[in-house]
Amino acid sequence: DYYYDSYSHFNIHEDMLKDKVRTKAYMKSILDNKNLFEGKIVLDIGCGTGILSIFAAKAGAKHVYGVDNANIILHAKAIVKNNNLADKITLIQGKMEEVELPVEKVDIIISEWMGYFLLYESMLDCVLDARDKYLASDGLMFPNKATMFISSFCNDEIYNQRFDFWDKVYGVDMSCMKQWVYKEPLVDQADRGTINGDFVKLIEFDLETVKKTDLDFVAEYTLKIRRDDYVQGVIIWWDVYFNYCKIPIKLSTSPFASETHWKQTMFFIENEDIPVIKGDTLSGKVAVKKCTKNPRDLDIKIQFKLENREIDFDKSFVYKMN
Amino acid sequence: DYYYDSYSHFNIHEDMLKDKVRTKAYMKSILDNKNLFEGKIVLDIGCGTGILSIFAAKAGAKHVYGVDNANIILHAKAIVKNNNLADKITLIQGKMEEVELPVEKVDIIISEWMGYFLLYESMLDCVLDARDKYLASDGLMFPNKATMFISSFCNDEIYNQRFDFWDKVYGVDMSCMKQWVYKEPLVDQADRGTINGDFVKLIEFDLETVKKTDLDFVAEYTLKIRRDDYVQGVIIWWDVYFNYCKIPIKLSTSPFASETHWKQTMFFIENEDIPVIKGDTLSGKVAVKKCTKNPRDLDIKIQFKLENREIDFDKSFVYKMN
Ligand SMILES: Nc1ncnc2c1ncn2[C@@H]1O[C@H](CSCC[C@H](N)C(=O)O)[C@@H](O)[C@H]1O
Ligand SMILES: Nc1ncnc2c1ncn2[C@@H]1O[C@H](CSCC[C@H](N)C(=O)O)[C@@H](O)[C@H]1O
Repeated sequence: DYYYDSYSHFNIHEDMLKDKVRTKAYMKSILDNKNLFEGKIVLDIGCGTGILSIFAAKAGAKHVYGVDNANIILHAKAIVKNNNLADKITLIQGKMEEVELPVEKVDIIISEWMGYFLLYESMLDCVLDARDKYLASDGLMFPNKATMFISSFCNDEIYNQRFDFWDKVYGVDMSCMKQWVYKEPLVDQADRGTINGDFVKLIEFDLETVKKTDLDFVAEYTLKIRRDDYVQGVIIWWDVYFNYCKIPIKLSTSPFASETHWKQTMFFIENEDIPVIKGDTLSGKVAVKKCTKNPRDLDIKIQFKLENREIDFDKSFVYKMN
Repeated sequence: DYYYDSYSHFNIHEDMLKDKVRTKAYMKSILDNKNLFEGKIVLDIGCGTGILSIFAAKAGAKHVYGVDNANIILHAKAIVKNNNLADKITLIQGKMEEVELPVEKVDIIISEWMGYFLLYESMLDCVLDARDKYLASDGLMFPNKATMFISSFCNDEIYNQRFDFWDKVYGVDMSCMKQWVYKEPLVDQADRGTINGDFVKLIEFDLETVKKTDLDFVAEYTLKIRRDDYVQGVIIWWDVYFNYCKIPIKLSTSPFASETHWKQTMFFIENEDIPVIKGDTLSGKVAVKKCTKNPRDLDIKIQFKLENREIDFDKSFVYKMN
């Protein structure tokens, strides 16, 4: 009976498991680094099917606590049992914020908490709270660092499909929709060839010290344009790092790496593209904050500044992820 | 401010509009049959962006009432205004069950109410209520008929991806998931070559006379197998018809027609496939009813019966769409 509620979760978890880049990064960072896990107490936040807890148990952890709020954890329990790890792994259903672990401190926190645009619908707040409450003073975070990157792009095909489409829809003028569509960032896998600027670091989070309040941020960027082209907007992606590993491991969602289910996030300049010349500099500020009315949404403001012989462009636009 | 809530609706409506098979079937049935619309009062249930209301106005309707509950209707109002049809089209935000139209009767009801598997998350109940309340005795329904079809299939690739996948997930035995995945019908576009039986009518709804209670139904099917193969389950799809048109128009979601966003729905036999010989007969009952606990979900029970020289198979399985 319980199970039926978790139906909808099959597909989500199946898709996440089938994202090889994602799952293998965690697998390698755990299974290839048994020395870090042997005899340790591990907390897996948002354990889903239990896959990371099982990796940790196989890596020699003394005990693993997996916490998840969704009914998928009922399946996780069956899976743990069938893999003969019931004595090594304790699964607890509930919100991480609300459950009480049977231990005071843990040595390692593993969690796959990242959302689109790193922060959208992410569990990071809840991971940081758990870190402050449970992680031993010499404890380790897996991953331990996250970095966001920014570059510029031009993709006429997407632009036509996404904006010009509304100009004539089966003979009907729906162009008034466009102004609203601009406000919506596009989550999609960018073809490398559409990136026309260098990519630069936007912001870095040290997951062992970052505070929840740091997650609303303003960051500056400055990047060089790589070819004569047009800039239609900026594209943002992230990497997370497992630096305690013998061979440091990076889980990257870059358009220059293999595709993941997170893809990248594109922010279009409203109604315009900026003609650019190789060597031009694009710069500006990116401000991200949780929406006050609905903290699950993100309010994002991006400034685009570019000067060259012919152009003196400096505008800001607001976007909402919801 | 209002608008932000309807952000999420952009993509849905964009995807529906970009489904050419869908939108063109409505467009042709309305715009190529102006004689039916001239001087008529039309009700568009679930008007979304207003596209069907605008078609009806262009076809010469005296007045069109469009009803939708979602904030997308705020955009629809702007669109109607920009297309200079504000005097012909009145848009009303609200649930069809709850709004009061300013007219007692309408001559034509148009609505794109169909869901996956025809009935899942469909608006049909609400369309039938509106029909009984508002449609003139000689009024027309667009579409006026709906038919569901059934056939048998075999697709090893999907089977492996969907079920065998769980046997070993990065070295972890998750096979206990399979029993639950079987209960979930798969909505996907079937390659024609995977259909290995004749397709037959499962049930037909005359939308001018059908009652809400008829939508929970039990229907029988009997179909001939077309080639030596295996049967892994049955596949169900639907067509709707606009028979008042000069040239009757059919909107088909058949795997033998062009793909639509509805695709088809596949029901897998649990843990087995049935070896079949060309000419064999597969038959059984299909029972569909709204879930009592949660009427938005569908409970479906399917019987699979097949006898030949070597096989005497007769089993039933339950599925849930949610
Ligand atoms: N506040 C919270 N407390 C507990 N679990 C949470 C949570 N917020 C999200 N989750 C859970 O976090 C999981 C993230 S998905 C990751 C699943 C699994 N660790 C894997 O790598 O495959 C989801 O199953 C979700 O239900
Ligand atoms: N009970 C109800 N009352 C009013 N609108 C409803 C409804 N149930 C669903 N809807 C609306 O029905 C629409 C169906 S989608 C079809 C949109 C449009 N007619 C087109 O063809 O493009 C959605 O916009 C949804 O918000």
